[in-house]
Amino acid sequence: MNFTDIIIKKRNGNELTTDEIKYFIDGAVNKTIPDYQLSALLMAIAINSMNERETADLTKAMTYSGNVMDLSDVKGIKTDKHSTGGVGDTTTLVLAPLIASLGLPVVKMSGRGLGHTGGTLDKLESIPGFNVNIPMDKAIEQVNKTGIVIMGQTQALDPADKYLYALRDVTGTVESLPLIASSIMSKKLAAGADAIVLDVKTGNGAFMKNEKDALELAKAMISSGKSMGRSITALITDMSEPLGLHIGNSLEVIEAIEILKGKREGRLKEVSLALGAEMLVLGGIAEYPEQGRMLMEENIHNGKGIEKFIELIETQGGDSRITEDYSLFAQPDKKLELKADRSGYIYSVNCYDIGRASLCTGAGRLSKESKIDFSAGIIMHCRIGDTVERGDIIAEIFAADNEKCIEAADIIKNAVNISDSKPKERKLIYEILR
Amino acid sequence: MNFTDIIIKKRNGNELTTDEIKYFIDGAVNKTIPDYQLSALLMAIAINSMNERETADLTKAMTYSGNVMDLSDVKGIKTDKHSTGGVGDTTTLVLAPLIASLGLPVVKMSGRGLGHTGGTLDKLESIPGFNVNIPMDKAIEQVNKTGIVIMGQTQALDPADKYLYALRDVTGTVESLPLIASSIMSKKLAAGADAIVLDVKTGNGAFMKNEKDALELAKAMISSGKSMGRSITALITDMSEPLGLHIGNSLEVIEAIEILKGKREGRLKEVSLALGAEMLVLGGIAEYPEQGRMLMEENIHNGKGIEKFIELIETQGGDSRITEDYSLFAQPDKKLELKADRSGYIYSVNCYDIGRASLCTGAGRLSKESKIDFSAGIIMHCRIGDTVERGDIIAEIFAADNEKCIEAADIIKNAVNISDSKPKERKLIYEILR
Repeated sequence: MNFTDIIIKKRNGNELTTDEIKYFIDGAVNKTIPDYQLSALLMAIAINSMNERETADLTKAMTYSGNVMDLSDVKGIKTDKHSTGGVGDTTTLVLAPLIASLGLPVVKMSGRGLGHTGGTLDKLESIPGFNVNIPMDKAIEQVNKTGIVIMGQTQALDPADKYLYALRDVTGTVESLPLIASSIMSKKLAAGADAIVLDVKTGNGAFMKNEKDALELAKAMISSGKSMGRSITALITDMSEPLGLHIGNSLEVIEAIEILKGKREGRLKEVSLALGAEMLVLGGIAEYPEQGRMLMEENIHNGKGIEKFIELIETQGGDSRITEDYSLFAQPDKKLELKADRSGYIYSVNCYDIGRASLCTGAGRLSKESKIDFSAGIIMHCRIGDTVERGDIIAEIFAADNEKCIEAADIIKNAVNISDSKPKERKLIYEILR
Repeated sequence: MNFTDIIIKKRNGNELTTDEIKYFIDGAVNKTIPDYQLSALLMAIAINSMNERETADLTKAMTYSGNVMDLSDVKGIKTDKHSTGGVGDTTTLVLAPLIASLGLPVVKMSGRGLGHTGGTLDKLESIPGFNVNIPMDKAIEQVNKTGIVIMGQTQALDPADKYLYALRDVTGTVESLPLIASSIMSKKLAAGADAIVLDVKTGNGAFMKNEKDALELAKAMISSGKSMGRSITALITDMSEPLGLHIGNSLEVIEAIEILKGKREGRLKEVSLALGAEMLVLGGIAEYPEQGRMLMEENIHNGKGIEKFIELIETQGGDSRITEDYSLFAQPDKKLELKADRSGYIYSVNCYDIGRASLCTGAGRLSKESKIDFSAGIIMHCRIGDTVERGDIIAEIFAADNEKCIEAADIIKNAVNISDSKPKERKLIYEILR
């Protein structure tokens, strides 16, 4: 096979064969195809796209580009969950202890934050002592004993995605439906789950700015997963404002704890329970989503959810006293209260900019090498549709110094649009594709 | 400037600024932009194209990416000529001696053959002793004394084109109007000509398969040249069969000599005189093309053209006796006569395949490293529209061994379509854009 011919084929908008796609992925992983040829094909795919069959073939080739996790020693149906990324989006920390407390095994391989979105591993590491580096045999032992493990991805899984993602990042080819779908799905499929629930975010804080694109991405991922014999459910959910009110690492852990304790309602809880309910159905614990949701609510009220979270923290070496005493988290040096400069309705929020503001506080990573300040972040005091009076606090900002607080406050001020008009009602969950 | 942003801009089909294009070319030449980013942008350009302004800016940036030749020491208006490449296309060897014999200085930097098309330098080197490696100061001395020099390109000119062309070749981005136009024009502009005549080929043996594409390419090149203050004339000419009857290196020199001696008419002579006439007008020797053509015909008949060619050969160390005795060229070991297997009209010729057949004989280069057999090649004995009888010779094939002859003959046999129908009349020169 001549790789230049494959590039030209896609450049001219034609369909690649299964073998050509496999040749591409093998060549990327074995480094027999040089980067400049890979990036030319990635750009041709980004512009001319791929059909469902090609995307499924690409996903499959990537899934098997390295080791695939064998979870056969874990008892029960292995379900996994993936979010396309948002701001204040810590559904994993809410739903994982809840579904584990209901007997569904959770072997969750999570990622780190990059850019304006956070990552579950960073959030957990804000808990003093918490260790996310669990060898596979220990992880299986842990899940069979406690029902839950949350860990970092081992190097060997899906090397094609690792390699291609780094290349896409610097060649303007990140935003591409088939490339995003195959990247997400191949990682999940290589992680060995039997069933996967996808949370596809849409709105100004998400990759997919509109519902149509989110829907297309969801469909591409479902088709790829199905072609490999897995059960997939996708939810299209709103990300036109931060999902939770807390943005930052220990701040988001705190919000999850509050929800697990039954002390907080709202959008983050709603989406977490919706996702969890679908996982319980796919995992055979609940017969229908409403039942799954009820079971989760029950385990919030009877304390089994928070108990499971405490067990998880202790098993992975963390200080579980933080669930009772938030002052045991690292504390920020400076705090700034941002006040409304006029009265009116919170008409819209530039959610991407709130993510950027969180980056400014030190809560996120600009590059892979950046060091995170676990204590930094933002607590939003308003939601779209709320009314505020001039002088009301609309956000609290936490950071290591005043400069960072002020920089973040400036961004948030511009990101929150206060108006005399009442905004239209928005859905939180646009669609569920089973 | 962030190069990924520039890539994304073009990927989304937007226009790049002059500064962004300059940044791209500077980065390619200084190697501050990695190949994988360059190739991603090249693919985005190949698919989403560039407008006239961008193409002109790209041409300018490439022209000045290295040294630009200073021909101010050459007396008179410096004209140059470029063909987009074809088969049996040796117009330079016909027109250069003719216009030089009329007092128009010729400083011609030529190239080598690659793939199915030949190169002037290779053809000249088939003349025993002919040297194309002339240092610049010697070249200027020679042109001021004899009026003509034909030489290889010095390394330092247009390094951007050299670098990007090599990358395009392996990334499926060769076929792109703005990239082809800027590649051709920047080389010509860096070579220092005041005026340029372009021979844009169209047909199944050319880069541009149809007239519309050829016209667009011509317009892009004219606009780029004009934006840098040069006079440009472009001819759209036919390449749906080989231009001359001889294909190969010494074979094409022989055909040029026959034309210069007034012994042969036909398509090669017609196009050569048409191009030369335009150069004479741009160079101020003729007032209008018909006059230029008359002057050239005159210097064929009075022998001044062939005398100038002899002078060129002798000045550059070649054995000029070849103009009288073709047996002084290296001789092929084997010859094969291909005969018509039926009677009828020559309905069409796959000109690209004739070029490929010539490659098979050893007359061309598959890669830059290939060694050329100067004596190899093809003499066509038929033209589209001719009638042939079964058993007539339609081509003679020359090569170092029988296998090569047979391989080439097979290709030619399939490339020449004999039919009962008479083909439509075709134009030789479709259009002249001044």
